[in-house]
Amino acid sequence: MDEALLIVAHGSRRTASNDEVRALTARVRETAGGRFAAVECAFLELAEPSIPAGLEALIARGARRIRVMPYFLAAGRHVAEDIPAEVDAVRAAHPDIPITISPYLGRSAQMAGLLLDMAATHDTAPAAV
Amino acid sequence: MDEALLIVAHGSRRTASNDEVRALTARVRETAGGRFAAVECAFLELAEPSIPAGLEALIARGARRIRVMPYFLAAGRHVAEDIPAEVDAVRAAHPDIPITISPYLGRSAQMAGLLLDMAATHDTAPAAV
Repeated sequence: MDEALLIVAHGSRRTASNDEVRALTARVRETAGGRFAAVECAFLELAEPSIPAGLEALIARGARRIRVMPYFLAAGRHVAEDIPAEVDAVRAAHPDIPITISPYLGRSAQMAGLLLDMAATHDTAPAAV
Repeated sequence: MDEALLIVAHGSRRTASNDEVRALTARVRETAGGRFAAVECAFLELAEPSIPAGLEALIARGARRIRVMPYFLAAGRHVAEDIPAEVDAVRAAHPDIPITISPYLGRSAQMAGLLLDMAATHDTAPAAV
């Protein structure tokens, strides 16, 4: 396995919210094609796997490099400090595995267009079946 | 003014996070072209304006219809209950102004592709100046 992607979400007490992240991860896996050898998710808190557990599982499966993608809208303490700290602990244990952290979701240059697309969603009547 | 768009974020104690939402709102306004006559943001808590204040300001400026776009990743209590409750209060005061709530951001069918694009952001070296 070459490069793996770990999508990191905050985690919620609501199982449904965590399952939304898992379903999104499955869609990313399907969409990725050959871009990533594996696509998994992990949670900063309140849900499993943790970030270290998610990274270790990818390494155990043979990942040679890992990209961490923070599924966060704002650059708060979680993005600026907590996620890097969790990643650093795994880096120290696996100095031969490069682990890079992508910009968090809210930084996407495509976000404005995506919001406008979402705002238009109600313009169409529900599909007749 | 015809239809206005109100982007609703959670709000943060961090001024920088709220300013990120305001900057995004400005980008949406530029991107919208003639799609919306006005594009503003409001916050569920911890920042101003509140959702009712944001809606009232748009109505005072002449909005005849308002679209509310929840800038949230998961369908938690905020999306399912709190935002609709705040909107309902303004609907009751202005029964002649249709206010619709779009699906929240995390529901976007484009999210998987956007995450993959963000994950690739570090692939390119920083631009030489």
